Amino acid sequence: MKSIALIGFMGTGKSTIGPMLAERLGMSFVETDALIEETAKKSIERIFSEDGEPAFRELERSVIQRVSLLRDTVISCGGGATIDQRNLRLLRMCCRVILLTADPNVLFERISQCQSRPLAKGITRPSDLVRLLEQRRDAYADHDFCADTGMLTVQEVVDAIVEWVGEQDPADDTLRVPVFLGNRSYSIVVGSGLLSRIGTEMRKAGSRGKVLLFSNDTVDSLYGQAALIALSEAGFECSKFLMADGESYKTLETAGRAYAACNQSGLERRSSIVALGGGVVGDVAGFVAGTYMRGIGLVQVPTTLLAMVDSSVGGKTAVNMPFGKNMVGVFHQPHLVVADHETLETLPLRDYRAGMVELIKHGLILNAALLDYLVKRPDMILRYEPTTDLTYAIAHSCAVKAEVVESDETDMGRREILNVGHTVGHALELACGYGRLRHGEAVALGLLAETTAANMVGLASDECLATLKECLSPLLKDVHLSDIDPATVCEALESDKKKRDGKVKFSVLQRIGSVRLGVEFDRMVLQDAIAKATHL
Amino acid sequence: MKSIALIGFMGTGKSTIGPMLAERLGMSFVETDALIEETAKKSIERIFSEDGEPAFRELERSVIQRVSLLRDTVISCGGGATIDQRNLRLLRMCCRVILLTADPNVLFERISQCQSRPLAKGITRPSDLVRLLEQRRDAYADHDFCADTGMLTVQEVVDAIVEWVGEQDPADDTLRVPVFLGNRSYSIVVGSGLLSRIGTEMRKAGSRGKVLLFSNDTVDSLYGQAALIALSEAGFECSKFLMADGESYKTLETAGRAYAACNQSGLERRSSIVALGGGVVGDVAGFVAGTYMRGIGLVQVPTTLLAMVDSSVGGKTAVNMPFGKNMVGVFHQPHLVVADHETLETLPLRDYRAGMVELIKHGLILNAALLDYLVKRPDMILRYEPTTDLTYAIAHSCAVKAEVVESDETDMGRREILNVGHTVGHALELACGYGRLRHGEAVALGLLAETTAANMVGLASDECLATLKECLSPLLKDVHLSDIDPATVCEALESDKKKRDGKVKFSVLQRIGSVRLGVEFDRMVLQDAIAKATHL
Repeated sequence: MKSIALIGFMGTGKSTIGPMLAERLGMSFVETDALIEETAKKSIERIFSEDGEPAFRELERSVIQRVSLLRDTVISCGGGATIDQRNLRLLRMCCRVILLTADPNVLFERISQCQSRPLAKGITRPSDLVRLLEQRRDAYADHDFCADTGMLTVQEVVDAIVEWVGEQDPADDTLRVPVFLGNRSYSIVVGSGLLSRIGTEMRKAGSRGKVLLFSNDTVDSLYGQAALIALSEAGFECSKFLMADGESYKTLETAGRAYAACNQSGLERRSSIVALGGGVVGDVAGFVAGTYMRGIGLVQVPTTLLAMVDSSVGGKTAVNMPFGKNMVGVFHQPHLVVADHETLETLPLRDYRAGMVELIKHGLILNAALLDYLVKRPDMILRYEPTTDLTYAIAHSCAVKAEVVESDETDMGRREILNVGHTVGHALELACGYGRLRHGEAVALGLLAETTAANMVGLASDECLATLKECLSPLLKDVHLSDIDPATVCEALESDKKKRDGKVKFSVLQRIGSVRLGVEFDRMVLQDAIAKATHL
Repeated sequence: MKSIALIGFMGTGKSTIGPMLAERLGMSFVETDALIEETAKKSIERIFSEDGEPAFRELERSVIQRVSLLRDTVISCGGGATIDQRNLRLLRMCCRVILLTADPNVLFERISQCQSRPLAKGITRPSDLVRLLEQRRDAYADHDFCADTGMLTVQEVVDAIVEWVGEQDPADDTLRVPVFLGNRSYSIVVGSGLLSRIGTEMRKAGSRGKVLLFSNDTVDSLYGQAALIALSEAGFECSKFLMADGESYKTLETAGRAYAACNQSGLERRSSIVALGGGVVGDVAGFVAGTYMRGIGLVQVPTTLLAMVDSSVGGKTAVNMPFGKNMVGVFHQPHLVVADHETLETLPLRDYRAGMVELIKHGLILNAALLDYLVKRPDMILRYEPTTDLTYAIAHSCAVKAEVVESDETDMGRREILNVGHTVGHALELACGYGRLRHGEAVALGLLAETTAANMVGLASDECLATLKECLSPLLKDVHLSDIDPATVCEALESDKKKRDGKVKFSVLQRIGSVRLGVEFDRMVLQDAIAKATHL
């Protein structure tokens, strides 16, 4: 069952109510502050005084990443844990979030008896508290249930929560990842069996008007019918556009034919295109939705693992040009992403594993807990099984992507951290000829090569490189590149479009959770690193 | 010479310093508050108490529209006049803006002696004033010169301003219209002889990297060389792409060839496309800039009157599809618009007059002072002369467009007020066959027909219709449509893409400055109105 997160200001009774609630519900209990102290091996008071609040928040964030991957657990969160939107996202998506409140006067009385809390020190009058509560308003605004611990007894609060939990669907293991982009915000819904619910999910997200289902022949034969039924049942007037399957059809010509289909179907500005398929379908459909009548609605329904955690999130759309991939496109955020991992049932094994590289990459760059979670589930990494574990892994990977996109919607800088492994990866794809390597495989090899190079020049730790090899090697079993000359790869690198001022720059993993942008490597170092990585 | 606007909080001495300054500079003097009282025929105190502050601000706004069209005038502005960004825009673009300030204690002493000011009533302590000044910070942040009237004597302040004005270029009659769109804000620079300065203007606006000059054969032969020289002299590495002249080349195919040119020229994400030409060039170049690498820089250098006040402002870009005009496009705001009206020298007379319709339309819907200004200059309306009067007219027309765009960047509703005349206008273009009518002529006829219909059903006043006829008739001298059947026009209307829920909706002028959206007309009324308008 989904975990329960207790949030609220200090003194609202999270630590008292949490264990009682866990016992009543037969769940485990964890307290983020206790986990932080355990990790730091010192008291929160000392963390604040010796390392400062930012260091505390950093620890808190990694603890939230860990606990949000747990199920059947009551999580008592530090009072400030949900100030950071990224923490709020993880709790919202994985837990039922319960806010505890109390009147400021009640809180003042409770807090003034406990001066060991670092943030309690500034509170000398109830009015200080009112001001602080006001500042925290956004952090507490978003929750599923709320209980006032000033008005009710502890037992009454526990009873009320248990009753409310009893009303929730225990089998519901669908996760919703919010992407915060102001008036372009949307949700990524992750789970199994969602295809039959896309229509109702679209209604929930506010979609109305006509719909064009945009797919390719292959995906259509598998899931087109189910999608059409789901859309019709929700009352959408729906037409269909199919492109041929394959990267070579990701062109302006295909977009041109799709525009005609939009017109034929009578789409208007409030209409939506539903992109059902992998990255190619998502990119072309997104580009068409972003440019038809200067932008209509877009819903992404990714059917590959890579598309679920990467291309369907973030609003990048594109078509290829004869002179380069993805050279023409727009940023156009979807209104909704529905990732039904049951569609991965029919995905070729190699594509599943290549997609898994992207999840690992997201763990490597921004979520060590996700990385750990993946490494501990070798079966899940190697082949598809319809498990809730996979739902959590996909949702957390989407959350990493969302975090990066939020900080850099139009790719002006920060998104570059997503490019780890991609510079050598692209060059490998070029050198091998497109089609021989899956994109994910190329990225995995690129990650290994770039991190090896970084390790050679002292930028990446031995431990980081070892972790990388451990988690990526199983996914590269089917890749054999002994015939590829590393010098050829280096040449392909120079023609990479990411070069700037004539020099090739790399986004390099230094250690888990830390990427350095704009790194340059000596040609010989790079060639050596590529040789080592490709002959793994 | 450009007027001088004195802004600042009440009590900073605008009314004292203004007349002295005007005398020293040989300028006229006006006070917006006095003009408001004159217009309303009652005191400001009574306007506030009887009609409320919003009514006062509305009057103030129309007075600012009037005075910002004046030259050689010292304008003393009410203390709150620049709270409204639209007023600030008009003053910034047309005047040298001088802020008068004084210490809050000094101000308090001055204000407490004058309780007739409506807003002074709430001020009982200097701290009230500090709070109010804080609220006004944005309103006073943007100015060209600032003088502290608490520290200096009145004479010293006047001397300081006179000295500063003496340092300004008296011949400078270039106007800059700011468009406020958050981090997509930009300026429209209007004047004559600006073509030779596009490179330096681009540098000022922060452009760097490579440039692709995008034009058509006709415009290139007239102004291409001058533009290239201006860009090169400012240090831009510049290539050129030419499309064929004409609406029929506004296609995805032309865009495709332009993308190849972008690639050939080595454009990167920070590079810019400079669109030199009329609406077609601007639309296609804008679409290419908005989609190449998911968006690169764009500078609009319009060379037709219509493009200057309409298509180059607001970020709408598009190409035509076989099934409809402007069906594919993006919103992509330029970094800069440079409108050099000397390029109108070579514009055919009919195109000049058709463009003038758009300026009149802008006056009709949102700026009665501009309309009055245009009507009083019949020579300017009928043929191009390189005058400063025209610079002011174009800049004010751009300001109207900017105001509408700011309130509705992606055309979700408010922009519809720009559609007055366009519904019948488009139908007329269709019924006559494209090419017979200039767009502006069709809009003028559409305005007449729609307002006639509105007048017939009691929505538009007789006076409004009479004004419309007076100002538009001179521009329609060359249009003869006696062969066109109004019934055919009505049929064309039904196929208009603006119809929603199957019904044709009109944006209708009710009186000068007031548009009603979503109006429906009875077919017979409409046909009758079209007959009257087209046989004018």
